[in-house]
Amino acid sequence: MKKYNIAIVWASWAVWIEIINCLDNLKIPVNNLKLLGSKRSAWNIQQTPFWDIKIELLDENSFKNIDFALFSAGWKISEKFAPIAVKSWARVIDNSSHFRYDKNIPLIVPEINSGEIKNAKIIANPNCTTAIASVALFPIYKHFWIKKIIISTYQATSWWWAKAMQELIDSTKSYLDWQEFQNKVFSHNIAFNLIPHIDNFCENDYTKEEMKVTWETQKIFWDENIKISCTAVRIPTIRAHSESVTIETEKEINPQEVKNLLKKSPWVKVVDNIKNNTYPMPKTATWKYDIEIWRIRQNLVFWKKWLDLFISGDQLLKWAALNAVQILNEIIKTHLN
Amino acid sequence: MKKYNIAIVWASWAVWIEIINCLDNLKIPVNNLKLLGSKRSAWNIQQTPFWDIKIELLDENSFKNIDFALFSAGWKISEKFAPIAVKSWARVIDNSSHFRYDKNIPLIVPEINSGEIKNAKIIANPNCTTAIASVALFPIYKHFWIKKIIISTYQATSWWWAKAMQELIDSTKSYLDWQEFQNKVFSHNIAFNLIPHIDNFCENDYTKEEMKVTWETQKIFWDENIKISCTAVRIPTIRAHSESVTIETEKEINPQEVKNLLKKSPWVKVVDNIKNNTYPMPKTATWKYDIEIWRIRQNLVFWKKWLDLFISGDQLLKWAALNAVQILNEIIKTHLN
Repeated sequence: MKKYNIAIVWASWAVWIEIINCLDNLKIPVNNLKLLGSKRSAWNIQQTPFWDIKIELLDENSFKNIDFALFSAGWKISEKFAPIAVKSWARVIDNSSHFRYDKNIPLIVPEINSGEIKNAKIIANPNCTTAIASVALFPIYKHFWIKKIIISTYQATSWWWAKAMQELIDSTKSYLDWQEFQNKVFSHNIAFNLIPHIDNFCENDYTKEEMKVTWETQKIFWDENIKISCTAVRIPTIRAHSESVTIETEKEINPQEVKNLLKKSPWVKVVDNIKNNTYPMPKTATWKYDIEIWRIRQNLVFWKKWLDLFISGDQLLKWAALNAVQILNEIIKTHLN
Repeated sequence: MKKYNIAIVWASWAVWIEIINCLDNLKIPVNNLKLLGSKRSAWNIQQTPFWDIKIELLDENSFKNIDFALFSAGWKISEKFAPIAVKSWARVIDNSSHFRYDKNIPLIVPEINSGEIKNAKIIANPNCTTAIASVALFPIYKHFWIKKIIISTYQATSWWWAKAMQELIDSTKSYLDWQEFQNKVFSHNIAFNLIPHIDNFCENDYTKEEMKVTWETQKIFWDENIKISCTAVRIPTIRAHSESVTIETEKEINPQEVKNLLKKSPWVKVVDNIKNNTYPMPKTATWKYDIEIWRIRQNLVFWKKWLDLFISGDQLLKWAALNAVQILNEIIKTHLN
């Protein structure tokens, strides 16, 4: 079996290790594994399930003999170095938002649209909120045709920037010790608080985080007519995003049909035993590859064809690490064999 | 000026002190103030802005010479003792759910329907989520006629039972100290988690907390045709509930008109300076009498006549303490003068 040379570009420690664990768990045949970082992190040694790896400084020669380059470094690094990686014949899987809205670049959730990967040299990974919702909703979309989606999010503090999660911990400790705390990552102190503001505000007064859910779901579902309105809220949880979702379908729908459908769907877990107080929660969704879904019920405003439901998923996995490695796996299996 | 004898029945310390502070801040003319408690709390001394008060044991003779009895003790105590208070010629203002759905008992948010108080001997206070939403939405309802409401809540851990808030604090400390924690109040460990389950589940798979928002808003707005679907979620915040709300109005509506309207509305604060990162949050809404509202924008699914918006309000005040004392104030001013 052919083995591949893989580079991971400039991820935080939280994302490095998740990507590497996913490579291991999905049994990706790895020949060489490069970690490419900034001056600050280069020459650190990283322990991995494969072997110990010294982080190398990212530069224009980093991608020689690399088959796959996984970028998790923010759009500026992706903009500059993804084309360089492609010139060196690496295939790029990019976690930043830089390429997501480019018509020539596929935006992939493998459960949904892996067929669009084809020969693309650069493949974009969606935003975390979109990735989690789309995995849970696509089976319903496919069978009942979802026309409208209203989402309110409950987003955790961890994303590629581990500082954010640390700020939740530090600010919470300060609060409990009656100490002052100066927030740096978040616009306000997040300890025992919530912030209805993620990413910059757009002209229509939605945030970019909220608009990404519309733009990206339309692209992934290949359906410009699906209408989505999102309210994105940061809450003081460490990991795993949750989403309260209302959907309208074209065909009539009931919870039992949805349950039968989702139980057969990959990477989705129906968590519906309310007698045992079992429902989607960050606590149970954290570190899991499956997206938890339930609390499905007929919406009381519209009734037929409308459902309310609740989703939790580990956004560091489904967004940054697992989704990227699933894409890589798909390319190896489908396109390179 | 006539002064009144007021009894507060079996509240937790958190609610006792909020009610007493509201009596003080709203300048209610108090002659005598009785705190009526269980065997466990009776004979404790409570410091108040009026004077130190010894908590007395609640019994059938507790309401002699009492003009107003404010109940915050759960429905069983209200069911048993509210009629006894009424027989002693006290007027009862009840925070429990026991009388809320009785057609003969007015359910009052004074900003909205104080006219229904009339000569009622028992007056019910709504659920916290309903009270907060209704104060923010009623001005819009009155001018643009709201027909449909979809709500996702972000509810804090403090309610009449101070144990719940303490469990958040204790479980968070345990988490940060890498200690095990045994949850008692909540169905799961709430530290850095959320729980999409408040109160018991109903037959339609909504929780009672979610259904209360429908039932009570319809009664308070005196509109059986207003349709409401709610998802109620407990999050790890200490105090002040938030709500992500989507509304449909009968008349066309735009955010600027709503702003002009809400800026003139009592007990509501428009928090709309996104350039300064100002929006409704538990941190800023806590201890405030006003309900914070903004992030108003045209809903992207329906566009015209539909808005998305965000609300935060101190539920211990607007639900338990302030609303009850506002009702009491209304009776004194309108009906007893």
